[in-house]
Amino acid sequence: MQRIYIQEVATRDGFQIEDQFVPTDQKVELINKLGTAGVDKIEVTSFVSPKAVPNLRDAEEVMKGIDRKPGVTYTTLIPNAKGAERAAACEADEVNLVASVSETHNKKNVRRTVDQSFADFNTIADVLSGTGIQINGTLATTFGCPFEGGIDENRVMTLIDQYLDLGAGGITLADTTGMATPKQVHQLCEHVLNRWPDLPVTLHFHNTRGMGLANVMEGIRVGVTRYDASLGGLGGCPFAPGATGNICTEDLVHMLRFMDYEMNADLDQLIAASRDLETILQREVPGQIIKAGKISDLHSVSYS
Amino acid sequence: MQRIYIQEVATRDGFQIEDQFVPTDQKVELINKLGTAGVDKIEVTSFVSPKAVPNLRDAEEVMKGIDRKPGVTYTTLIPNAKGAERAAACEADEVNLVASVSETHNKKNVRRTVDQSFADFNTIADVLSGTGIQINGTLATTFGCPFEGGIDENRVMTLIDQYLDLGAGGITLADTTGMATPKQVHQLCEHVLNRWPDLPVTLHFHNTRGMGLANVMEGIRVGVTRYDASLGGLGGCPFAPGATGNICTEDLVHMLRFMDYEMNADLDQLIAASRDLETILQREVPGQIIKAGKISDLHSVSYS
Repeated sequence: MQRIYIQEVATRDGFQIEDQFVPTDQKVELINKLGTAGVDKIEVTSFVSPKAVPNLRDAEEVMKGIDRKPGVTYTTLIPNAKGAERAAACEADEVNLVASVSETHNKKNVRRTVDQSFADFNTIADVLSGTGIQINGTLATTFGCPFEGGIDENRVMTLIDQYLDLGAGGITLADTTGMATPKQVHQLCEHVLNRWPDLPVTLHFHNTRGMGLANVMEGIRVGVTRYDASLGGLGGCPFAPGATGNICTEDLVHMLRFMDYEMNADLDQLIAASRDLETILQREVPGQIIKAGKISDLHSVSYS
Repeated sequence: MQRIYIQEVATRDGFQIEDQFVPTDQKVELINKLGTAGVDKIEVTSFVSPKAVPNLRDAEEVMKGIDRKPGVTYTTLIPNAKGAERAAACEADEVNLVASVSETHNKKNVRRTVDQSFADFNTIADVLSGTGIQINGTLATTFGCPFEGGIDENRVMTLIDQYLDLGAGGITLADTTGMATPKQVHQLCEHVLNRWPDLPVTLHFHNTRGMGLANVMEGIRVGVTRYDASLGGLGGCPFAPGATGNICTEDLVHMLRFMDYEMNADLDQLIAASRDLETILQREVPGQIIKAGKISDLHSVSYS
């Protein structure tokens, strides 16, 4: 069976919007567990302004505190050249850049036009040149924008080209607010892979409208093998209070494991880490497997 | 695009396990709204012992109180000949029989061997003979049993044959405790439809482990066009407290509508009915669309 790569984003995409600051040592401990559990990539933190995202104000301490497991890529989100310098100082394996396909969403998210974002990214590429740090380019709102609605596929293609021009080694197509349908995932990914057959493409889904795992199955069908997911299903979207967040790592790994896909990630260790997360956050997380158990967890028969 | 049939089970599969009895007039009002919303079939209630399922003790009043919309099939679950007589007296369009593929589950669920269940079903078929009331045969635990684990496909095939022998006009393959994976759905449904190409097959999924809509997509891929779903995602499984219930009707219709599948059901009316359900039950239901809104519900841009 196909090898599928599991890329964990809870400590960045999840923790950034939590009501509370997760203490640095708890972040480090969780990231170490995720590394031991064998996920392929961990988006550790963001090198953004501590004022903009106070929950991730300990980015340096976290990056320097974690144990780096061989085979795991430790990536960080960065918004600008300053972030690139901070990531380089911490010897991140990769940096993740984010621009929205939707002009309106980009403006709301980073207060820049998309052209301005890419101008910044070119400066970042200069800063990182020669450091060996890889660049991943994320396109937010690839499958729809909560302000603009539908997204023009040609624009997605153009922006992928722009990322590749500045030296990105991988592209993430992000469904930022959970608007993708399986049909749409199938069509767009097929077109992207037809044009760039060797490009490492990641799909980043949110389960906002319940379609997350259906979208993964469709991505796999057309040949995408890398998936972002968030432990416990943390994360979410400010426009959908109460809705579920990113697709849940252990639910994803559970589904794929029981279909015999090849993964490095260990399901039981992920479930244990997700339970730790509930303890850290002192609340229930949206993931289903920690509530329902694995398919293989059989019940004893007692006739009452 | 393909025509997909939406079959509502909330007032039976959902209400039977709620903590509270839903008053008869509220049941009737909800079922009338579901009929107006254009679902293709409604499993109205169960003609079981009021002692066994007190929440559905008003089965006759509900069946007699509802408005029957043309084109909608009003079905009821029945366990035995007595239930068949009650369903016939209320002029149900169809009765739904349930036996588990797993011997252990059948014993736990109805305190009978599977052979005893089918002996009862033959008596039921005799009772209904000449009434014009259709029989649907449901196989519970088709995709896995919480006690026995994996299910032998040959046994599923044998039991479908037994249902057809006693005159069932349709078969429901039920994933009673949410154990099906997309791969399994694909394989089993392909085999069933290869053997009985014209058999009306329904898939009945629970979203216990988050795979519900992914399983629907796989069922559609191999040609199954009938899906049970529960308004608000009501229902559930006693072995997975806190886990989500049946796949959610409005989430299902939302996904399929935005992929241009043809359905009779009206999404906005279903969403409105699901909000009513929250009022009736005085609690949040698991469905995602009533929290997140439709893909097409755009947000206004206000730069703060």
